Formats: sequence, structure tokens, C-alpha cells
Amino acid sequence: MELPTRFAREAREWCPVGRVTVRRPVRKLTPHGERRRPDTLAAEEPLEIRLSGTPLAVTMRTPGHDVELAHGFLLSEGVIGHREDVVLARYCDSVDDSGRNTYNVLDLRLAEGVPMPDVGVQRNFYTTSSCGVCGKAALDAVRLKSRFHPAGASFTIEADLLTTLPDSLRERQRVFAATGGLHGAGLFTSDGTVLAVREDVGRHNAVDKVLGWAIQQDRVPAHDLGLLLSGRASFELVQKAAMAGISLVAAVSAPSSLAVELAEECGMTLVGFLRGESMNLYTGNAIA
Amino acid sequence: MELPTRFAREAREWCPVGRVTVRRPVRKLTPHGERRRPDTLAAEEPLEIRLSGTPLAVTMRTPGHDVELAHGFLLSEGVIGHREDVVLARYCDSVDDSGRNTYNVLDLRLAEGVPMPDVGVQRNFYTTSSCGVCGKAALDAVRLKSRFHPAGASFTIEADLLTTLPDSLRERQRVFAATGGLHGAGLFTSDGTVLAVREDVGRHNAVDKVLGWAIQQDRVPAHDLGLLLSGRASFELVQKAAMAGISLVAAVSAPSSLAVELAEECGMTLVGFLRGESMNLYTGNAIA
Repeated sequence: MELPTRFAREAREWCPVGRVTVRRPVRKLTPHGERRRPDTLAAEEPLEIRLSGTPLAVTMRTPGHDVELAHGFLLSEGVIGHREDVVLARYCDSVDDSGRNTYNVLDLRLAEGVPMPDVGVQRNFYTTSSCGVCGKAALDAVRLKSRFHPAGASFTIEADLLTTLPDSLRERQRVFAATGGLHGAGLFTSDGTVLAVREDVGRHNAVDKVLGWAIQQDRVPAHDLGLLLSGRASFELVQKAAMAGISLVAAVSAPSSLAVELAEECGMTLVGFLRGESMNLYTGNAIA
Repeated sequence: MELPTRFAREAREWCPVGRVTVRRPVRKLTPHGERRRPDTLAAEEPLEIRLSGTPLAVTMRTPGHDVELAHGFLLSEGVIGHREDVVLARYCDSVDDSGRNTYNVLDLRLAEGVPMPDVGVQRNFYTTSSCGVCGKAALDAVRLKSRFHPAGASFTIEADLLTTLPDSLRERQRVFAATGGLHGAGLFTSDGTVLAVREDVGRHNAVDKVLGWAIQQDRVPAHDLGLLLSGRASFELVQKAAMAGISLVAAVSAPSSLAVELAEECGMTLVGFLRGESMNLYTGNAIA
């Protein structure tokens, strides 16, 4: 199935019917006995991302918004920086044992002049550092790879607006509401508008999907957007935001030590424990 | 630092002092104003796992129980099956810019006759399947790699015992209590005893650590143990349990579709939403 990026952008709300959730029977056990009922599960399937036919990565993801996911992944890895860097995205013709297309292999073609990444090292970017492998090397690697510096942004948001966003995110997490089994990520503006929400069994995939949305909307560097996370803020998620030029990351749960260090080094504002009417401000001054 | 596996086993409760958590100031914002206070963060740092000097993988983990983590990772990947398969584990002498050992590079030596894994393909094990990449191929790959079949186990546990375990896990998650920022995994017996609890910023690392504990205790195949997860049950986590011969996985939150499929294919019992006095039984019959 050919999806030129223009079409892929237009079809960004496309989800494979019946694949985002899976229904199956479950036995619910309580002190009062056992009840059989149908349950809705968040779908999880592998997605292989290829560049001009060469496998680059496999991620276990919830099907849907795969073209966004691939764009966001390539942006996070420093392979692309603008939507024009990808000229074609198409599902491969791979079929399963029953002869059906799996829609689990997505092949992208980079524009002329965009260098292919070194597939060999893949995501182990900090292993090449001279100081062995340490937190500082990981931070250095992000700085070296990043083409958009979050510190260049002048994004601010009012604290009371920010505290309303977790509810907005939750309301738009339709699959979570049905399954209780998905991470959510959202992009918002300084007036508190949530522009895009994506869900996935993997939190890094949810973030890749919203970043892919942003690059397809030509909104990268996303200096005027904040990133909202339904769970914890790890180094990897803050790194993805930094690669997109985002200057504010707000998480409902705790950040890790290295996530805070990276945010500080990037001049990014990092908020954690965004719950009810309060929040923890770890770094930065984008909260008005 | 040399850690013969015997010593590593004895030192399994060792944690690098001051590295499991990190203290730093935070600004707590509420409608009543701003308060500065120290906050405790879960530490996150990269760990590079090497085999006889060759880099195999880098994972972002919470320092501590690294030797277990490496053992569990190698078990999950099908590289080792018994504790004798690893003859030496030692931290490399890599130092950071200040000349301090980072304790972030762990080099293991496999016993004679244990084949080195193909580092090139790493974890992308399902890409080599003839049917492209799909859920079924992922299931097939686990079956091909696994040397311990969970279906061979006769492990059962009473439902009312099982419902007490999340509290036991939480009580022993010391770092979570301090930071709110860690996933937990535990191994338990059919009489409801929790044998080992490990925490990590990455849920896969928490599971690798308890599995590494099990293999170092010579308890693999762990047919007589159940695995408890503080969060969701993904394909990857059920796969790790299957590789260790564990026949019951119980998660506090939701499983994914592929996690349930894999559990069913392996003859494993999978419990989700283990909360309060109730639970969802997705597959298997190990609940008495």
C-alpha cells in the first residue's frame, strides 16, 4: 500500500479498524465467585521500520498512526529534521501465513541528500563516547545530535492552565478508557490547547507518534509546543522532546535523575507530578 | 572491579551507595504559592553489557543489581540457561571525565561451549521470520528460543493469597516509596512468599534483575515461581518469564493483546488487574 507523505499527512487520523483493541473473554475472580465476560485489550504488534528496504528498527507498538510513529522515531534519532526529508512512506507487501498483509512493515524513502543513518550502531549512541558510558556521555550525545536547541524557545504557560491538561489528555485517550492499558502523549500550546494526542502500549511510541504528527504538520522545531506525558519522564522521552526543539515537558508522574539533568542541560522546563492543582518544577522557568 | 559469579551471587544485595536515588532541589507549585524543597529522584544511568569485551546492549537502568540485570538479560535473550554459563562478571575500568569509574560497563565471560550470540541482529529477533513481521512471528521466535517450557510446570496458588502480593511488593519497593518513580518486579512461591523484589526505571530491567537473581540462585527453570509486576504486562515481559520457565505472571495493571496470546501459546497463566480482592484471569488455570 503506497502512502505518499502528502496522503499520509491527510490520513493521519487513520487507524487500522479492529486492530487498536482486541476483544477476548476473561474470567473475573472476586471473593463472590467467578464471572466470564468479554474484555477489551490494547493491541500490541511489532512494527518494522525500514529505510529504502533496509531494516532499521523493530518496535512493539499499538497499530495505528504508524507513519507518524516512523517520522517521530527518525526525528528522535536525528535522521530527519523536516517533513521534506521523507519523500515516501508505504507498507510493504509482507503477508502472514494466511496470506494477509500484516501492515507491520513500513518502508520510508529519504529525500536526496539526507544521509542514511549508520544502522549498525542503532540506538546505542552513547557507546562511542570516549569516557565509556555514563550519564554525561548520554547528555553529550544528545547535544551532538540535536539540530534544534530548546533553549532558543520563549514558550511559557500559566500554572493553572497547565494543571487542566492531564484531564484533557485523559479525555482524549479513548483506547485507555476502554482498556486501561495505554500510555498517552499530547502536544499543547501556551494557551492550553491540546493539539494532538496519541496512545500506545509503549510510552516512547506514544511520544514518537505525536512528534511525527508535529513534523508532518511542519511544526518542527516545535518551540511553541509543550509535551504532556501520562506517566513518568525518563531520559529517553526528554531526549525525544529535545530533538524536536520542545522546551517544556510536563509529566503526571516522576522524572528520573537523568531526565532532569538533560532538561537542565538543554535549557528545557521539566514539570513532574502534575496532579490536581499542584506540580513539581525541576528545571526551567516556562511556568508563568 | 572483578566480581567472580560466586562473589556476585553473595553480593546480590549490593547497591552502589548514593546512586539508586539522587537528591536535588525542586520548586513545588500549588495555588497557595511556591515552596522550595529537596526532592528524591530515581537514578537513571546507562549500563553497557559486554560479552568478553564485545558490546552487546545498552540499557537505561537504575544502578544496583547490575550483575543480576545482565544475567537476566542474557537468560531472556536465550544466551544462557544456567548460572554456570557465566564464569565471570566484572565492571570495566572505564572512567568519566573526572577520572572516576562509572560502574556503567559490565563485562561477562561465557563458559566454554556457550555460543556467543549474534550481536548484529540483537533484539530484532522476529525480523528473520519468513512471514515478515507479525504477532505470530514474534510468538514463533519465543518458542524457538525457549529452552524451558512453562507448560511443564504444575504451579498453582490460591486466589486469596495472590491478592495479598501487590501489597507485599509495594512494601518492599523502598526506592519507589522515596521517589514514586520506579517499576517493581517480584518472584513468589505458591505459598505466597515473595522471595525477591527488584526496582528499576525500566520495567524490563526490573524483570531482568529478578530473573538474574533466580538464575544466580540456581532456580531456573523457575517452574515453582510466579512473577509479579507492579504495572502492565507487555509481550516483552511475558516473553522474559517464558524464557525462565515461569508459568504464572500476575500484573497489577492491564496486559496487552500479544502478551495474552503468548501466555496462551506457552500454557502460562496470566492474571491482570490484580487489585484489592479481585483479578482478571486471561489464560491458564494456576489459580486455585
